[in-house]
Amino acid sequence: MLNQIRIILVETSHSGNIGSSARAMKTMGLTKLRLVAPQCDIDEQAVALSAGAEDVLKQAEIFSCFDEAIADCDLVIGTSARLRHLQNTLVDPKDCGEKVMAYLHQNPEAKIALVFGRERVGLTNEELLKCRYHFYVPTNPDYGSLNLAMAVQLACYELRQAWLKAGDDYQLGKTTHKDMRIYPKAADFAYFFKQTETLYRELGFIKNDGVMQKLQHLYQRADLDKAELNLLCGMLSIVQKKLND
Amino acid sequence: MLNQIRIILVETSHSGNIGSSARAMKTMGLTKLRLVAPQCDIDEQAVALSAGAEDVLKQAEIFSCFDEAIADCDLVIGTSARLRHLQNTLVDPKDCGEKVMAYLHQNPEAKIALVFGRERVGLTNEELLKCRYHFYVPTNPDYGSLNLAMAVQLACYELRQAWLKAGDDYQLGKTTHKDMRIYPKAADFAYFFKQTETLYRELGFIKNDGVMQKLQHLYQRADLDKAELNLLCGMLSIVQKKLND
Repeated sequence: MLNQIRIILVETSHSGNIGSSARAMKTMGLTKLRLVAPQCDIDEQAVALSAGAEDVLKQAEIFSCFDEAIADCDLVIGTSARLRHLQNTLVDPKDCGEKVMAYLHQNPEAKIALVFGRERVGLTNEELLKCRYHFYVPTNPDYGSLNLAMAVQLACYELRQAWLKAGDDYQLGKTTHKDMRIYPKAADFAYFFKQTETLYRELGFIKNDGVMQKLQHLYQRADLDKAELNLLCGMLSIVQKKLND
Repeated sequence: MLNQIRIILVETSHSGNIGSSARAMKTMGLTKLRLVAPQCDIDEQAVALSAGAEDVLKQAEIFSCFDEAIADCDLVIGTSARLRHLQNTLVDPKDCGEKVMAYLHQNPEAKIALVFGRERVGLTNEELLKCRYHFYVPTNPDYGSLNLAMAVQLACYELRQAWLKAGDDYQLGKTTHKDMRIYPKAADFAYFFKQTETLYRELGFIKNDGVMQKLQHLYQRADLDKAELNLLCGMLSIVQKKLND
């Protein structure tokens, strides 16, 4: 299950952080690393800090933008400061581990993206809107300067803890396979939002970005499955078609 | 309570690890660092990696031997590989946090030592024998190469988690009203669903009750607030209006 999780680093500036993240991942049994437009080379520093985890570095996939890196993922979690407007979707490392394992239990083939932002500025609001949950670490309120690779370590540690615990639960015969839901990929969501925006701009309802941000936030939170997203897409199409008649 | 905990690093070789440990501690609200016979200087590298936690470095106390560094502590926990002969005293990071908080709860004046060994060889058997508990991180059995500062980060994270939880337990029942969201009344929901049904029946999209049930289910789950429901109602109205033109 841990190999279904992608750790995605967005526009990382320091190669040492990439190396240390690879090492952190591997100590917890994770190996799939994705880099979005890294702002540094995978140089000697990265290799040195990866210690014995050079294989994770070597297999890292590189993408030119955020959307491509998450396109094939079913559940996308982005790291974030503890922002007020995200309060309904915030997960701490432990919640995150548990939610991911619960998700994989219900969707055994799913791919999970856990996305870490830029060292100084994190993820953009636009990127955060594409995430179902927002990962934050409850740090010292007077000093929240958590190093990127340290955050990766904490996330992977709790993923492993939850995975070990899930294994225990299986063995105790506690868990059941009820209600298998199939979730849309990030690319399906992107398509729906694009269509929505096009239609309502045409209608003159959307005049600024605020509306789309609200809608993205709302629909991310709704935890839509594939059939539900298809239903909403169908509703859009029928209106579009009627207006074009 | 967190300031009653000493993080003790024994014969550390890399100054970067000392700096990163200081930073890791401070992000979790710990500030008392002790160094036993460090094998390196507190140099620029240490200061650079401590980021904003230079105060922790500057206040670090230096001891010439293990015994002196733990002398004034009431509870001593040493880090260790998962050794067989220690199995009755092993604690993982979470257990460690909980045991420390339980101890401090019963002994409000106590000082706690959490001791991390040398990068390559850890603590000696003699040193381990002086510890009440033995801290280990349940890592990947094929690759347990956890960096020293990462181990400090995980330990401090779980100490903080346990401390926050202890605080919550105290304050149970004292819940605060921050960020009150205003929720729609049931009647507002009913209105929205009615309008939706009317429109999409007109458009020929809804032909049975199943669709409305799915939509109700989906929007209930989204935990909509009043502003969000108003937004969705607005989107319906604009379509309705356009079609009636």
